[in-house]
Amino acid sequence: MDSSLLIPAAAGILAMLAVGYLVKDVLSKPRGNDLMIEISDAVQEGAKAFLRREYIYISIFVVVIFAIIAATPFVARGEGIAESLGWQTGLSFIIGAVASSLAGFIGMNIATRANSRTTEAARKGVEDDKNPEGGLKSALSVAISGGAVMGMSVVGIGLLGLVLVILVVDVLSGDAGWGSHPGWINGYAMGASLVALFARSGGGIFTKGADMGADLVGKVEAGIPEDDPRNAATIADNVGDNVGDVAGLGADLMESYIESMIAAMALAVGLNVIAGPSLDGGSGVVTQMQILPLLLAAVGIVASIIGVATVKFMPGKKVQGSLMNGTYVSAALAIVGAFVTTKIVLPEGFSIGSVDNGVQEYGWMGIAGSAVVGIIAGALVGFFSEYYTSTKFNPVKRMAKNCQMGPAITVTDGLAVGMKSCLWPTISLAIAMLVAYNFANFYGIALAALGMLVTTGMIVAVDSYGPIADNAGGCAEMAHLDKGVREITDNLDAVGNTTAAIGKGFAIGSAAFAALALLVAYMASAGISTADLSSPNVMFGLLLGGMMPFFFSALLFDAVSDAAFKMIDEVRRQLRDIPGIMEGKAKPDYAKCVDISTDGAIKGMLLPGGLAIVTPPVIGLVFGGEALAGFLIGALVTGVMLGLMCANSGGAMDNAKKYIEEGKVSDKDGQVQGKGSEAHKAAVIGDTVGDPLKDTVGPSINILIKLMAVISLVLAPMLAS
Amino acid sequence: MDSSLLIPAAAGILAMLAVGYLVKDVLSKPRGNDLMIEISDAVQEGAKAFLRREYIYISIFVVVIFAIIAATPFVARGEGIAESLGWQTGLSFIIGAVASSLAGFIGMNIATRANSRTTEAARKGVEDDKNPEGGLKSALSVAISGGAVMGMSVVGIGLLGLVLVILVVDVLSGDAGWGSHPGWINGYAMGASLVALFARSGGGIFTKGADMGADLVGKVEAGIPEDDPRNAATIADNVGDNVGDVAGLGADLMESYIESMIAAMALAVGLNVIAGPSLDGGSGVVTQMQILPLLLAAVGIVASIIGVATVKFMPGKKVQGSLMNGTYVSAALAIVGAFVTTKIVLPEGFSIGSVDNGVQEYGWMGIAGSAVVGIIAGALVGFFSEYYTSTKFNPVKRMAKNCQMGPAITVTDGLAVGMKSCLWPTISLAIAMLVAYNFANFYGIALAALGMLVTTGMIVAVDSYGPIADNAGGCAEMAHLDKGVREITDNLDAVGNTTAAIGKGFAIGSAAFAALALLVAYMASAGISTADLSSPNVMFGLLLGGMMPFFFSALLFDAVSDAAFKMIDEVRRQLRDIPGIMEGKAKPDYAKCVDISTDGAIKGMLLPGGLAIVTPPVIGLVFGGEALAGFLIGALVTGVMLGLMCANSGGAMDNAKKYIEEGKVSDKDGQVQGKGSEAHKAAVIGDTVGDPLKDTVGPSINILIKLMAVISLVLAPMLAS
Repeated sequence: MDSSLLIPAAAGILAMLAVGYLVKDVLSKPRGNDLMIEISDAVQEGAKAFLRREYIYISIFVVVIFAIIAATPFVARGEGIAESLGWQTGLSFIIGAVASSLAGFIGMNIATRANSRTTEAARKGVEDDKNPEGGLKSALSVAISGGAVMGMSVVGIGLLGLVLVILVVDVLSGDAGWGSHPGWINGYAMGASLVALFARSGGGIFTKGADMGADLVGKVEAGIPEDDPRNAATIADNVGDNVGDVAGLGADLMESYIESMIAAMALAVGLNVIAGPSLDGGSGVVTQMQILPLLLAAVGIVASIIGVATVKFMPGKKVQGSLMNGTYVSAALAIVGAFVTTKIVLPEGFSIGSVDNGVQEYGWMGIAGSAVVGIIAGALVGFFSEYYTSTKFNPVKRMAKNCQMGPAITVTDGLAVGMKSCLWPTISLAIAMLVAYNFANFYGIALAALGMLVTTGMIVAVDSYGPIADNAGGCAEMAHLDKGVREITDNLDAVGNTTAAIGKGFAIGSAAFAALALLVAYMASAGISTADLSSPNVMFGLLLGGMMPFFFSALLFDAVSDAAFKMIDEVRRQLRDIPGIMEGKAKPDYAKCVDISTDGAIKGMLLPGGLAIVTPPVIGLVFGGEALAGFLIGALVTGVMLGLMCANSGGAMDNAKKYIEEGKVSDKDGQVQGKGSEAHKAAVIGDTVGDPLKDTVGPSINILIKLMAVISLVLAPMLAS
Repeated sequence: MDSSLLIPAAAGILAMLAVGYLVKDVLSKPRGNDLMIEISDAVQEGAKAFLRREYIYISIFVVVIFAIIAATPFVARGEGIAESLGWQTGLSFIIGAVASSLAGFIGMNIATRANSRTTEAARKGVEDDKNPEGGLKSALSVAISGGAVMGMSVVGIGLLGLVLVILVVDVLSGDAGWGSHPGWINGYAMGASLVALFARSGGGIFTKGADMGADLVGKVEAGIPEDDPRNAATIADNVGDNVGDVAGLGADLMESYIESMIAAMALAVGLNVIAGPSLDGGSGVVTQMQILPLLLAAVGIVASIIGVATVKFMPGKKVQGSLMNGTYVSAALAIVGAFVTTKIVLPEGFSIGSVDNGVQEYGWMGIAGSAVVGIIAGALVGFFSEYYTSTKFNPVKRMAKNCQMGPAITVTDGLAVGMKSCLWPTISLAIAMLVAYNFANFYGIALAALGMLVTTGMIVAVDSYGPIADNAGGCAEMAHLDKGVREITDNLDAVGNTTAAIGKGFAIGSAAFAALALLVAYMASAGISTADLSSPNVMFGLLLGGMMPFFFSALLFDAVSDAAFKMIDEVRRQLRDIPGIMEGKAKPDYAKCVDISTDGAIKGMLLPGGLAIVTPPVIGLVFGGEALAGFLIGALVTGVMLGLMCANSGGAMDNAKKYIEEGKVSDKDGQVQGKGSEAHKAAVIGDTVGDPLKDTVGPSINILIKLMAVISLVLAPMLAS
């Protein structure tokens, strides 16, 4: 065993200590008055109910998939099978699934407890201390702590789990050491990916089924406002925010984070690395290149902790500025750390290549540079997402103005903005890929993916802060608190919307890069030196792969509609069968609605999820490893575009509505077209169309392309034989 | 010169004789009463005004592009440049542009004259002869004649133009013969593609800008019904039907038709064909494989003429049945003809391959079989389009029912249906490609594309019949004819909607196959033996190519919105400035609205069109031929999916509205939710969203992927050097 694994292990433990500190910090805060506690409890219980059911299904999947993985070498014979599948890979798979589930559990648990505490911090500042500015700061402090629990859990558990897997493989490999069985390690990423599928797709169906159901029956039929306690679906809707944006996003980025490390490790082995001048043998470099991703992740954890601390202990006047400061601090530290670490770990120069294609020289600078390229590309993709979805920029302003032409133009415009938003992120990713390749071959691409994700702790903290602020606002509203309290939470929430848009763009960008890294790792591990576009098998794979994101998305749309319809029936039934709800004399059965959403979410994702799991082995085994490469890249290309389009269309439609609500749109006579105007009605329809696009379909595509790629990587040694 | 060129030349002349006969037949029919003549004249003039302007812009583009093509060998030196570019290629390019323009001009000219004549034939049967069944038959006869003029012009002029280009290249090549300069011939397809870009994208912007503008101001603001003569945009709307569905579809399929022949010819040269047992040298087979596509096209022309005659002279009781009979007859004849022709032309066996990859034996059966595979795949893709968009099947029925949940669910459902509709057509295309490849290597893929398109004459005839029937209905309505007349035209129109949906699916399927054939032809001509997916340059191309259809579509959406907004302003202005319009005392200025649509269409397509033209050379020259291959396949994959999604989403939303209007949707209490219900209002919004999806964006993507591929094919010899 390599003693340098101690560093990532220490960083992981440090992250978990930070989690402990933050949990204690959040729980030490007062929960607010009885009404606030009641609301917070209902959301907590709903979230727990969802997670419980989700984990039961995940367990079933994990057991079945483990059984298949473990049994394959006994029923099928062939060189490479024992290297891809077998109980050892299955064990890593289980560790990955448990790690991701655990992070989700901890993060959700605290996020749903931080909501009323954030409201209470704001309330205390406004009502008790008569110091709204202090209230804002302490509310921000609670919310960011709550978010950071998820962020630090993701990176801490993610990295510790990987170290554990390496230790286990090391023990199982005996004298040969863990480096002799790289295939066994890959199962870890697949486990994280499976949980992410449930969290993202299931969570996405949950949140939008509840949201659309609540809106369609509440606002339209019963004429009661949003977040009204008389609507039985209200709690399910609030639970959904946490399920989608905390657990879903966390699992998604955790998957990318783990996969970029796994892909880099696999590429270190799969590429033909030749000893550099300062080393006597190639294997030394390979091991160092395998360990480097973990060390960079360790650097990223330290950078993220400092970033979170900056937000928490040195908040600026403006919330947005404080969050961005933290993000910049962690990114800057990560860049410096990446250069220092790489310089220490890697030799001056070494080569990658084969006799056929010529050997190319690379150095530590190129490898560190690749990671930096990834950080920059991630920032760019995030920025472009903001540009296309923020009320600050022209696309949304123009859209909001056009809402006056009615709902059809609104939706058409929204789709157009989404489609247009593919341009620059794609160019950024494509150029980053080329540059990273030139810096350090395919290993550079994997490191760029890791670079993008190295400050995941900070990024998830900022993103998970969003739903906490959102829930805090709902809590203030439902508990009829002072207007000043709501102003603070609105301020926090508005920033949360921006960070959510950036986070979504970032999630797609990192998913694309992680999937790309997995794809090249797959090809290297399967020994596929060329997947020729002009081979009909590859083209066949490309076409089918390109179709997958579309078909998968359609199934998710159906699942959301089905869940929403069931929710509507239930809310209607309660209004009919439980007397006194409308008068506020009787309480609706919130738990039943949470149950319906949970059921719809889990059942709705079985078909699309199953499809994502089953297709790669089928394509690979029937049409060969090259067809599978084509399939993966086809899915990657259409998936990235469709994902960007869905996320940004939805984001733009959401914010066009907000822009109108802010009273910033006037007709040609100068009359303000605000809430309740025809333009606003059109914008509401647009927002409802955009909701499943941005919160269900878009994010789920991230998982689709990564899950299919990581399954292929696991199968790679088998397909090589 | 090869004497076997006489056969395609004769078939082309035969097609033009049929055009002459059909034109005489249509023009010999009475035009109806004064009001009908007035309406028909206005549409004719509008269409002419659009074409005139379009052709001016096309001329400018043609001259500029010709100059670039002709000048390149003088300014750039390099092996292969003179073979790709030069005035000889430019000459073919001009012939292609003229051929497509000419076919569009003839077809539109007659289609816009057939409308009132169809109405009059129906009127005579109902009012004069008291024989509605006879009226239906003679109305069908006029409408199909009108459509067949476009159909036969497309194939006749398309094939004659190709023969002309070969003759010209033969003369220019001197003793070496036309076979010595295959690159020069490719310009022909590029010319047809340029015109198709204007006709499809420009036409698509025209038709939907006018349609949305007319609806938004007419129905919503002024409260006047559709097709009302008081709405200044009405004539523009009717012109748009012809511009989009006659000229646009005709140019689109003409492009695919020509490109599949060109691709097969290029592949015959580019592939390494080795002499078969019954021949003494390889070159004999190559020439025969170059000529074969033209001979198959000749067979297809004869088959199409017989098909049209079947509809015209042997109509059944039902319109749909009559049209399908004609289609089946022509397809069956084409299949038989393909086998006979191939058997006569090709030797028993021959081989394609290279020493590296092994040599494979093929025979005439495989080549004829490839064409048949294409015919079957085309039929399947058409069928699946109908399945997802017809009121007869579940997807639309379910959607129509869900319209009761409001506009947001309607649109979401429509998008989901479109996404789902990618599954089977993609699988059909992918399998057809694999089978065709196994039958006859890449040449088989090109022949499958040609097979799909061999009965283009019949297919375009049936499709162009649609807008004629649609216009005839509008004419009957506006001229206040007997209800029985409207029943006949409604009957014809309803069938036209089905054929339009099938035609759209078919256009995408054939575009995909044509683009695929062009892609492999490009690779063969550029001497690119492998475009490795794991090469970063290829991946770079793939990502950017995959983005293109999305960005291109967004630009088209914007162009439609802009055109619609300008139209709205103009209609509003006329209602305000021209007194007496609303009372029917003054006539609006229809020509001005046509002008606005024309302007919006031409200007709106310059940016997306220019992008499509410029990107392939930039990618190819800067990043190399392999990156360009990646770029093309990236665009192909996302383009096919996005195209299918857009076309079928739009079709499904359109027909969901029709299904509701037919009174076939009831709420849970059994109350019919027909015209004017909330469900219907939601469906109208869905239809308006779907309109630009199915009539502007979807069809334009066909052109995008083909245009970029054909430009690459023209550049291929240059990129090889």
